Amino acid sequence: MVKALVRDAGKERDRRPRAGVLTEDVAEIVDDPSIAVVAEVMGGLEPAGTHVLELLRRGKHVVTANKQLVAQRGAELFEAASAAGVQLRFEASVCAAIPVVKVLRESLVVTNVHRVLGIVNGTTNFVLTEMEGGKSYDDALADAQERGYAEADPTDDVSGADAAAKMAILATVAFNARVPLADVSTTGIAEIDPLDVAAARELDMVIRLVGAARLVDGHYDVRVQPALVDKQHPLAKVDGAFNAVMLQGDAIREITLEGPGAGGTETASAVIADITSVIGTMGTGFLQNDAAWRELPRLPAGDSRSPFYFRLSVEDRPGALARVAEGLAQEEISIARLLQHQNGNGAALHVVTHEARAGALDDALGTLEQLPEVHKRSRPLPVVSDRGVTELGWA
Amino acid sequence: MVKALVRDAGKERDRRPRAGVLTEDVAEIVDDPSIAVVAEVMGGLEPAGTHVLELLRRGKHVVTANKQLVAQRGAELFEAASAAGVQLRFEASVCAAIPVVKVLRESLVVTNVHRVLGIVNGTTNFVLTEMEGGKSYDDALADAQERGYAEADPTDDVSGADAAAKMAILATVAFNARVPLADVSTTGIAEIDPLDVAAARELDMVIRLVGAARLVDGHYDVRVQPALVDKQHPLAKVDGAFNAVMLQGDAIREITLEGPGAGGTETASAVIADITSVIGTMGTGFLQNDAAWRELPRLPAGDSRSPFYFRLSVEDRPGALARVAEGLAQEEISIARLLQHQNGNGAALHVVTHEARAGALDDALGTLEQLPEVHKRSRPLPVVSDRGVTELGWA
Repeated sequence: MVKALVRDAGKERDRRPRAGVLTEDVAEIVDDPSIAVVAEVMGGLEPAGTHVLELLRRGKHVVTANKQLVAQRGAELFEAASAAGVQLRFEASVCAAIPVVKVLRESLVVTNVHRVLGIVNGTTNFVLTEMEGGKSYDDALADAQERGYAEADPTDDVSGADAAAKMAILATVAFNARVPLADVSTTGIAEIDPLDVAAARELDMVIRLVGAARLVDGHYDVRVQPALVDKQHPLAKVDGAFNAVMLQGDAIREITLEGPGAGGTETASAVIADITSVIGTMGTGFLQNDAAWRELPRLPAGDSRSPFYFRLSVEDRPGALARVAEGLAQEEISIARLLQHQNGNGAALHVVTHEARAGALDDALGTLEQLPEVHKRSRPLPVVSDRGVTELGWA
Repeated sequence: MVKALVRDAGKERDRRPRAGVLTEDVAEIVDDPSIAVVAEVMGGLEPAGTHVLELLRRGKHVVTANKQLVAQRGAELFEAASAAGVQLRFEASVCAAIPVVKVLRESLVVTNVHRVLGIVNGTTNFVLTEMEGGKSYDDALADAQERGYAEADPTDDVSGADAAAKMAILATVAFNARVPLADVSTTGIAEIDPLDVAAARELDMVIRLVGAARLVDGHYDVRVQPALVDKQHPLAKVDGAFNAVMLQGDAIREITLEGPGAGGTETASAVIADITSVIGTMGTGFLQNDAAWRELPRLPAGDSRSPFYFRLSVEDRPGALARVAEGLAQEEISIARLLQHQNGNGAALHVVTHEARAGALDDALGTLEQLPEVHKRSRPLPVVSDRGVTELGWA
């Protein structure tokens, strides 16, 4: 049986679930012995906490996206899960789709991770990045709210409370020791002075809200606070509302995970991954075998599309460039950028094209190398340019 | 029973295993019904392939670090594993400790990953980075060999064969469809001309060996080739011999994993993680429950060490700086960098310290704010600077 607990079962919804799925009564889930796994995505400490505890006690696996619940009541909830012999998974509670909990728990299971360093709050990362451009704190925050990166009430983000809950969870998983939320030293970004932002720039640094968890001589030290970060440091390069977590350990040196730390589908992806992990660890055979379950054809070589770079050695005489451009145009390839360098008594033409079919470019270059003005041509290289996250140039 | 197959059981070893562990006869492992899981770290296609196939057929789970074996004989090996109801895991075969296989298989299990973009060979990344500084290909390669980043015979790296095997495996896992190694278009870096390196610089790009796997209209397109990469693109920033893999998918936008793509302990970490995953998916209860199994104390707040930044508003008169420096020196805090700015009729002092105890700095600041020359002091911020991978400044 599939059930979803909602406040108002009658509300208009974009996608209408099957009849009988929506319920306003948690007992319909708690008391249904056919339900084995429950995903908690309500948020807030209550009533979510009461529901999760009851579900665990009744022998149901629970997957949660609730960071404050895990950070504040983890000890109690995990004890209940253990006692009932069920799982409590919480990947979605930290940095949405970035699989840092699974990586710490399952991939770095024999590595002594002694330091976790991260940008774990996208709102403050965006605000601080904007302040570098000269904006005031208030203007940058208003901008973040307009773009949907900050809530109408941004207190949890700017105070560091959101990041602190994530760091408490990450430190607990990384160090295999319970780190209570109250033990995370937390300072927010509201006090950041434009004078400090300007001084950081002069020092070739930026200010970021950094989460840091360390093991020092058998003690944990977990903090969330604004820090000056060297511009060459990976954490200074984390884009806008993205998150990044660096894990340092004896066997692995350093592994960094970066991605969107929030978002609806991103969180859902982590929730469903946890559900499959619950099923996969129950001896079902799931997650055990080869997953190459479909056949796909290979793209014909010429059909690959990309911007390309290539170099031609040409005679340095009038009209050479025109004939090269014409040869490209015949295959509908347009030039994005062009460098020309003297090279002995000839010239080197460095050409960057707009996106083109690889096959069309090969045809064009085949024609160009027949020209008397062209002595040599290099193999074209694809170009990977930064056009934002979802639309990388190539490759 | 624990066994290790070696060429010469009598060889001197740094750590001598227990008697009876080393054997030169694979039958002692294949025929031993008490052995459930075998890790293959021999490398090479044979005899590793024959051994792995036989072990799977005999009902033993196999964990392998052998990328050429998985890329070239994956279909056959996975079929044998399926037929025998055992697992074949291969995290260590791609980018050592970077857990990209587990992340694709288990965390992004319901995400349609349609593009994988990566720097998956550290040797070529190092060589190409060195060439930017003006070195020839030959000199850069010799340098890589001296530092241990390249083998005496670097053919597999510079030809792209190593990267191609990794991309075949990653594409197969990402697309849930077998991508044969022969279908990976592969070009190495030996032909890279210093003219192209210089042109790339002028275009504000760098040349990198990029692995790319895409789904295009139901076809796969998998390539390893040198590409021009915009300097602002994350792949251009991958350090020296490190690897990075970007995964783009519908639900997750983009997740990037970065870390050391080679190394003995790094590979061992991935092998052991796979062994625990085999055990964890067999319904053993392992990997299911809370792992907060030890108690650690919190580090006293003042004992946290870091370089720090703080700002003082001081009167702009002779001796003010001297008294500030003296107050810091009394707590054994030394100044690393200092900026002084006029600010109305006073001055702002921006101070970056060398590493110091937080408690000592608090004491020093408590003393400084009593000075008649000091009007105001800011809360100190830790400084995160880039001192290489294993020694990040703070935090």
